[in-house]
Amino acid sequence: MPYIRETIVTTADANGKIHIAPIGIIAEKDGWVIAPFRPSVTLDNLAEVPVAIANYTDDVRIFAGCLTGRRDWPTVPVEGFPVPRLKAALAHSVLHVETVSDDGVRPRHFCRVVSEATHAPFTGFNRAKAAVLELAILVSRLGMLPRDKVETEIGYLTISIDKTAGPQEKEAWGWLIEKVTEHFAQVDVGEHAGSARR
Amino acid sequence: MPYIRETIVTTADANGKIHIAPIGIIAEKDGWVIAPFRPSVTLDNLAEVPVAIANYTDDVRIFAGCLTGRRDWPTVPVEGFPVPRLKAALAHSVLHVETVSDDGVRPRHFCRVVSEATHAPFTGFNRAKAAVLELAILVSRLGMLPRDKVETEIGYLTISIDKTAGPQEKEAWGWLIEKVTEHFAQVDVGEHAGSARR
Repeated sequence: MPYIRETIVTTADANGKIHIAPIGIIAEKDGWVIAPFRPSVTLDNLAEVPVAIANYTDDVRIFAGCLTGRRDWPTVPVEGFPVPRLKAALAHSVLHVETVSDDGVRPRHFCRVVSEATHAPFTGFNRAKAAVLELAILVSRLGMLPRDKVETEIGYLTISIDKTAGPQEKEAWGWLIEKVTEHFAQVDVGEHAGSARR
Repeated sequence: MPYIRETIVTTADANGKIHIAPIGIIAEKDGWVIAPFRPSVTLDNLAEVPVAIANYTDDVRIFAGCLTGRRDWPTVPVEGFPVPRLKAALAHSVLHVETVSDDGVRPRHFCRVVSEATHAPFTGFNRAKAAVLELAILVSRLGMLPRDKVETEIGYLTISIDKTAGPQEKEAWGWLIEKVTEHFAQVDVGEHAGSARR
């Protein structure tokens, strides 16, 4: 499998309405593939405005926020392009969609980098940031995963949170755990209702 | 627990001999704590030259390399300081040791940042990089961990490697897996010898 960068992708519709979404961009030849799910706002936006910004941010609250109803993160214009970048981006790439191969579920948009810029220094890896990212991926797939698998993984990831998190990572982790708790509470209610009906 | 940055720390002895080591630097007040184990070259070097460079690199081969006998990574001088930085650093902080509180095992060197610079853009999170870092931490503690725990964690981390690694991450992962395999092969021989003696 190819290298994947975990980014926040910004896109815009024809009216300039901005959308942000956590998307893993996939290395391919001399470019990057964005493969948004169908249906999704990112997919619609790329059809209207074939430019995406891959934001390289290490603020994991944005990844966790996008999965828990907190999508309102500050953006700043990128001169010469119709799509803004995240203010929190340490760096970004402007991607131009060259070709789309529509496989039905996740149309693959092959993009070339047309511009790049650096805004702030990388300050090193942090195990808690990586743990938040892993939990965010779990949360995006909650409906497909058995509860015991989710709980085991959370137990494992909690070690890094306890040992290395700062305030941002704790906040992001809290949002995601709340979402997991709500999800399984609903599953429990559903199961209970189901057994009552039987 | 405070925020921890996973960095490669460069230090030098009084003769200018350079040492590099993966060290988690710990946030404290307006500075960072370096707590090298006793005995260690980093500890000796800081006693001779109280300057360390925290290298913020995302090249996980350096973390894996330091744990598997591959310590020869290119450095470049940092003007005005007696310690070089890693060439592969995306950014670095020059840390000056202000105070040392010696608790016996891991003397805590409280450092202030006296200079910082950015060299290359951050290009986004990658789950395989995080997995290599987690395996590197396991490898650094192999003697203290039961084999089934190590194998379970490797099984979990392998998913991110298979899905998102590039050539650098695969190479780093391979070095660490080799080390794990060697370690348990030796343990097996030891156990066998032990049972033969019984």
